[in-house]
Amino acid sequence: MSEFFNNIKKIKYEGQNTENSLAYRFYDADRIVMGKRMEDHLRFAVCYWHTFCWEGNDPFGGKTMFRPWFERGDPMQMAELKMDVAFEFFEKLGAPYFCFHDRDVAPEGDTLAETNDNLRRLVDKMEGKMEATGRKLLWGTANLFSHHRFMSGAATNPNPEVVAYAAAQVLEALESTHRLGGENYVLWGGREGYDCLLNTDLKQEINQLGRFLNLVVEHKHKIGFKGMVLIEPKPQEPTKHQYDYDSQSVNAFLQKYGLENEVKVNIEANHATLSGHSFEHEIAYAAANGILGSIDMNRGDPQNGWDTDQFPNNVPEITLAMYYILQAGGLTSGGLNFDAKLRRQSIDPADMFHGHIGGMDVCARGLLNAAKMIEENKLKQAVTDRYADWESELGQGYLNGTLSLKDLSERAIRDNLDPKPRSGRQEELENLVNRYC
Amino acid sequence: MSEFFNNIKKIKYEGQNTENSLAYRFYDADRIVMGKRMEDHLRFAVCYWHTFCWEGNDPFGGKTMFRPWFERGDPMQMAELKMDVAFEFFEKLGAPYFCFHDRDVAPEGDTLAETNDNLRRLVDKMEGKMEATGRKLLWGTANLFSHHRFMSGAATNPNPEVVAYAAAQVLEALESTHRLGGENYVLWGGREGYDCLLNTDLKQEINQLGRFLNLVVEHKHKIGFKGMVLIEPKPQEPTKHQYDYDSQSVNAFLQKYGLENEVKVNIEANHATLSGHSFEHEIAYAAANGILGSIDMNRGDPQNGWDTDQFPNNVPEITLAMYYILQAGGLTSGGLNFDAKLRRQSIDPADMFHGHIGGMDVCARGLLNAAKMIEENKLKQAVTDRYADWESELGQGYLNGTLSLKDLSERAIRDNLDPKPRSGRQEELENLVNRYC
Amino acid sequence: MSEFFNNIKKIKYEGQNTENSLAYRFYDADRIVMGKRMEDHLRFAVCYWHTFCWEGNDPFGGKTMFRPWFERGDPMQMAELKMDVAFEFFEKLGAPYFCFHDRDVAPEGDTLAETNDNLRRLVDKMEGKMEATGRKLLWGTANLFSHHRFMSGAATNPNPEVVAYAAAQVLEALESTHRLGGENYVLWGGREGYDCLLNTDLKQEINQLGRFLNLVVEHKHKIGFKGMVLIEPKPQEPTKHQYDYDSQSVNAFLQKYGLENEVKVNIEANHATLSGHSFEHEIAYAAANGILGSIDMNRGDPQNGWDTDQFPNNVPEITLAMYYILQAGGLTSGGLNFDAKLRRQSIDPADMFHGHIGGMDVCARGLLNAAKMIEENKLKQAVTDRYADWESELGQGYLNGTLSLKDLSERAIRDNLDPKPRSGRQEELENLVNRYC
Amino acid sequence: MSEFFNNIKKIKYEGQNTENSLAYRFYDADRIVMGKRMEDHLRFAVCYWHTFCWEGNDPFGGKTMFRPWFERGDPMQMAELKMDVAFEFFEKLGAPYFCFHDRDVAPEGDTLAETNDNLRRLVDKMEGKMEATGRKLLWGTANLFSHHRFMSGAATNPNPEVVAYAAAQVLEALESTHRLGGENYVLWGGREGYDCLLNTDLKQEINQLGRFLNLVVEHKHKIGFKGMVLIEPKPQEPTKHQYDYDSQSVNAFLQKYGLENEVKVNIEANHATLSGHSFEHEIAYAAANGILGSIDMNRGDPQNGWDTDQFPNNVPEITLAMYYILQAGGLTSGGLNFDAKLRRQSIDPADMFHGHIGGMDVCARGLLNAAKMIEENKLKQAVTDRYADWESELGQGYLNGTLSLKDLSERAIRDNLDPKPRSGRQEELENLVNRYC
Repeated sequence: MSEFFNNIKKIKYEGQNTENSLAYRFYDADRIVMGKRMEDHLRFAVCYWHTFCWEGNDPFGGKTMFRPWFERGDPMQMAELKMDVAFEFFEKLGAPYFCFHDRDVAPEGDTLAETNDNLRRLVDKMEGKMEATGRKLLWGTANLFSHHRFMSGAATNPNPEVVAYAAAQVLEALESTHRLGGENYVLWGGREGYDCLLNTDLKQEINQLGRFLNLVVEHKHKIGFKGMVLIEPKPQEPTKHQYDYDSQSVNAFLQKYGLENEVKVNIEANHATLSGHSFEHEIAYAAANGILGSIDMNRGDPQNGWDTDQFPNNVPEITLAMYYILQAGGLTSGGLNFDAKLRRQSIDPADMFHGHIGGMDVCARGLLNAAKMIEENKLKQAVTDRYADWESELGQGYLNGTLSLKDLSERAIRDNLDPKPRSGRQEELENLVNRYC
Repeated sequence: MSEFFNNIKKIKYEGQNTENSLAYRFYDADRIVMGKRMEDHLRFAVCYWHTFCWEGNDPFGGKTMFRPWFERGDPMQMAELKMDVAFEFFEKLGAPYFCFHDRDVAPEGDTLAETNDNLRRLVDKMEGKMEATGRKLLWGTANLFSHHRFMSGAATNPNPEVVAYAAAQVLEALESTHRLGGENYVLWGGREGYDCLLNTDLKQEINQLGRFLNLVVEHKHKIGFKGMVLIEPKPQEPTKHQYDYDSQSVNAFLQKYGLENEVKVNIEANHATLSGHSFEHEIAYAAANGILGSIDMNRGDPQNGWDTDQFPNNVPEITLAMYYILQAGGLTSGGLNFDAKLRRQSIDPADMFHGHIGGMDVCARGLLNAAKMIEENKLKQAVTDRYADWESELGQGYLNGTLSLKDLSERAIRDNLDPKPRSGRQEELENLVNRYC
Repeated sequence: MSEFFNNIKKIKYEGQNTENSLAYRFYDADRIVMGKRMEDHLRFAVCYWHTFCWEGNDPFGGKTMFRPWFERGDPMQMAELKMDVAFEFFEKLGAPYFCFHDRDVAPEGDTLAETNDNLRRLVDKMEGKMEATGRKLLWGTANLFSHHRFMSGAATNPNPEVVAYAAAQVLEALESTHRLGGENYVLWGGREGYDCLLNTDLKQEINQLGRFLNLVVEHKHKIGFKGMVLIEPKPQEPTKHQYDYDSQSVNAFLQKYGLENEVKVNIEANHATLSGHSFEHEIAYAAANGILGSIDMNRGDPQNGWDTDQFPNNVPEITLAMYYILQAGGLTSGGLNFDAKLRRQSIDPADMFHGHIGGMDVCARGLLNAAKMIEENKLKQAVTDRYADWESELGQGYLNGTLSLKDLSERAIRDNLDPKPRSGRQEELENLVNRYC
Repeated sequence: MSEFFNNIKKIKYEGQNTENSLAYRFYDADRIVMGKRMEDHLRFAVCYWHTFCWEGNDPFGGKTMFRPWFERGDPMQMAELKMDVAFEFFEKLGAPYFCFHDRDVAPEGDTLAETNDNLRRLVDKMEGKMEATGRKLLWGTANLFSHHRFMSGAATNPNPEVVAYAAAQVLEALESTHRLGGENYVLWGGREGYDCLLNTDLKQEINQLGRFLNLVVEHKHKIGFKGMVLIEPKPQEPTKHQYDYDSQSVNAFLQKYGLENEVKVNIEANHATLSGHSFEHEIAYAAANGILGSIDMNRGDPQNGWDTDQFPNNVPEITLAMYYILQAGGLTSGGLNFDAKLRRQSIDPADMFHGHIGGMDVCARGLLNAAKMIEENKLKQAVTDRYADWESELGQGYLNGTLSLKDLSERAIRDNLDPKPRSGRQEELENLVNRYC
């Protein structure tokens, strides 16, 4: 055991009344909710990058997180040290999953071959760590945005050599994910967009991206990877405009490139709100269109226009998100990945635990609330009642296509239709939700 | 001639140095630009609603626009008076087109039959006015949002009777548009969305909308209407969330309901910016996806988060919009409709002219600038150069699908690819654009 | 008793487990919290305007709220009917206070004299109603924004006659407030700003406003009104920019015109968020500067950029607001006024109750949570600890001004100061707050 | 001469028709505008930080700017190399001024004493460079935000030792500025705010800041520095909320701490828009309140909610900014500092020139346009006319305080005032501005 967390023991469920700040008050992995263990509903994952790779920098300031593995030394040794601490954290926290980018776990070498070799060596070690600790991989991904070679995009770069480089990196990351039993593979297009439309061939770049996704899906099938391929929408930042703006944009893209049955979305709360949608809207839209894959659980700051990636802390908000997730049948291969980072002033190792414990408890409360909402069925019933007239002959005739515009018009005139508005009861339903929170 | 504009003569092109504020400085209808008359490039339309139907109300205040046709009196007579003034305005202004909603020109009657009859009588009159003045109809549409029957949506209402009512209204408006030689038919879904996800069946409502659009397209073909059917995206306002959020969302919707070859978008500048996109982005995206239909020309206020619908006044911004329109081959059946309203303090009849003249001159300057940009080809050439490597064997192999992910990876490793970033030259290109403004 | 609410009985506290949607679950007026009755902490007020005067219009649609007093008839009789229903509502709801604009309760007459007379007659009636029902007036105000005479501002109008007219209206509203025992008088400057800087003399207008406020304060003292005069900040809407942008702007204005000890702020949650601040920030800033007066309790929609004026429904958010209010010593002459309106689809009389009941319960929960946070003192203690070093000789020397810049510099160099960062513990403190929610 | 810019010659004014992209089309330093040299109006400054110290990092990616002085080596030698290149750039560009933070020019040493010594040695060199090249210092400042010791604030840190450290740094930077003949001294409070209100004593922190500013002003007088002390407002980023939110907030702060005659504001365009104000609003407000100091010239991206710090490129926008600057009497000790950075894809040395040349030409065009607007006086006259009634006896009586609220009310009733709205003519005035652009 490292000394890094030497004062911190395994985090346990101690119930709502504990005074211990390093304990779960609500997250009780084995508790049965709607016939399933809480752990199996929530499928929490810790992200490698924010928690173990971010040094605390922001656009106006440097490192605040001083960790042993950020010190000078052999990069491979530092990566091993980091992995030891990461798995110690995963285990002490008790989250069943983690997620990683290739570059989070293995440093670049002097050549691509050496880089791949570095990754393989650390994936070897990771395999052992996973076995030893029982932790699982929710998803893997490739970092196609940090290195300056990707400054003008990865799959959408004006230079096809960069695209080939990106392809090589994705192949290696996808195969590593496969080997580690990862349950999904994610593509986040942080540089797949533009800073300036003036120097960009939009149509060409989107075609490049469509081709790229198809190549990834083909390769997935070739190697027998059964996990889901996911795109993570984000509207902007780092670029001015990203092509995977939101779930709607991704849905248009997938259909255009014939991928609507092959690829789903990994929705991030903060990305949803940056794109002008509520978190629950993005979930509900993706579910309604059959593309809900997984969740990056975090939150933004309503007064700050960038990706703040904070741990979730508002129970009513998360209750609504969980309500729409449960309504969609729950997360299947997906999970709740904490793509959240500590504030840069939260520099103590214990803060890593506080962030995750708080987030997990908030999600557990949200799950419990949402489950009760579903079990009591009042909210759903109100919606069913509101649309009940669609069971009528008029409603069915409209939906099944037997009535034409002319038919509808004639009927409206003949019957002198004068439909009266009915209350939408929004406040009453919002009060109802508050009874569960 | 009415007395309403009795001090205002027909607006003429007088060139850049005139001191007359009621004259065009740049809009010269017959001037040839890139082989086409300016009028035929810009296809300006005046909107009936803001200019002749809006009384100056805002959410915190009442009427400021006191017009003879807003006074008490027989609604049909008032509608006729309004039409007389409207066509006098169209003619004096010299814009070739106008656009209208059914309810802009004809009042509701006691029954739907009477309402339709009102519309027909006023369409009769309009036909005469169009003939007499040579004005043309860019597009017609139905107002499915102002009346309280539509408070919970038109095509997406929980009550199928409201949908039937909306169908009847659209049929009548579409046929009126057809009869008047309208070149497009527009659907703006101001109430097709939700105020509250809790009382909404998102999937049901989007299916209703998909059915509705299909009915409209079928009817269009049945009656032989050759114009284009257009959806106008808007992200929110009046509702919390509208289904036609932006061009990307509409593109997803059209593909899902098999309408991608039947329906295009009518992009509004202010709606674009409210949805988090630049105006030129929405144009470029729609063009790249083959769905660019027409333009609602206006602008928002960058500091105000609602639809301010102001007349455009920034030449560099409009230059970029025109540049992407021209690159897309120009507006074919579409045009530039001024969906713009005077500020509520601009209460004089002359202000109507100032708003439109300013907007038309700004667009004319934008056109002239953009045409020169295209003719000199420097900007386009810079883009072509940037993507030149896609002509290589690697680039072509990638694009035509002969190279797999594995092929790309092997090549990257074999050749030890280490692509070097190249300057995106954004500032240089922005400076170049400024040379044309 | 009117028939309007004939199925609704007086709303009672029934505790958390009641199934009755028309009951309080948390708001228990007589419950003692931190030594004071809940009612005396919260001082709830119902606003006359949204609840009884708004017809459901939005910028894209007309009336949805059909109420007997909106029908055609003698304006004074309609106003009396409205007042009967309003007081029935106040009493059934059980909120102790209400607030009104002059024009909410009395219609304009043909002349200012007649208008004032209308108001006096309805204030007579109101006085009787208040006595009969035991309801009290939290604050009165004048509507200086709806009529077209104020389209270019009231106190900041370019026309001094409009300013004189506004002065007359404020005098009458202030004296009515005084006569009714109102505890505050509010000025909201909805038109005190500009639509366009080009036609505005900013300095002149702010001077006009400074003069106006001084006149109001002088008159208040002259007539012996002991209530507090309050400015309600709002950043924009209806105008592009309002001078009372936020509490900071008002604080600058008050100091410039010598009013910092005479006038405080009435902070509205939705206005706070529209100005880019959290609700609790505006409260904390005003408290720190001695200008916290009263609260307009509502919420905006984080995805909509206008004043949505919704009832509050997020308990953790309101808990924080109440925490900073309690820390500031609570509301003294101020209260929590529900400046909130139903959604325009919530058209039933019962919806009026649902909106207010939900809001009052959320505030009651917030109060209970915040009181416990204060009583247990953990959060406050964490802050005290964080600043403990300011008790040192260095800290005191700095604060009391005995150390100059040179002294500080010399000490820093002499002692070779190298202060180490300490964790801000944000996540831990956020988790702590969640224990109380 | 360094080889860094070896293909770039001194940038010259070549007029509007030159094809040379490395030339001025509008900026003609010696051209007389309104009786003053263009250079003396615009007082352009290059900022040291973005142009010479930023490596191209963004929150999702690393270095893209590879410069010789970023390579490994002795920090003082690298700083000297950087300074050589910087002055070569200043001279070739022909901007008369530059601005710097202490840490831009000199690296930290092991102790504060050593750090100060490093700065002094480089200030020595700088003095020589300035003399040799004729460049001048617009302002100096201290970097109190990058180092982790400032992660919780500088003057507002919970630890008084950090405040003492900051004081030492400011003293040194202020004295260096004085020695170099700097014309202003700027304080930007990037960390003077909070990430989380829960761990913050707002009142204590603002008091610390008030004390700090007073210390700076006292020291300035003690050493005889004649330049202006400036605060640079910014609403948020890096922190969630900064105390110097906007000019209004700074104005409140200055009055509270008795500094309104000692300190002015340095307004940044991008910070203005992030705070919800137009650039010209912040200028006009500061001018109206006597606190307009200097300008950080750049722009944000209307679709991106963070500080993009782009070079200005919209002539009509800059025209309005220059119009309000000229109306305020122009910049006296202030200037136009390009606090703008290249896009991170603009990696070539030539791009540095393109960014600045474009910005300078846009400002020169803005100046020429604004000067013509002022000389022809049409816009100003329209404003004067609009407020003409304030010359009346009523207007003067109101403004000079001889009329009470009661007097105004009595007059309004006696004269039965019924003021009629007059058109605000916004569109006409906007068209007028476009004639000058």
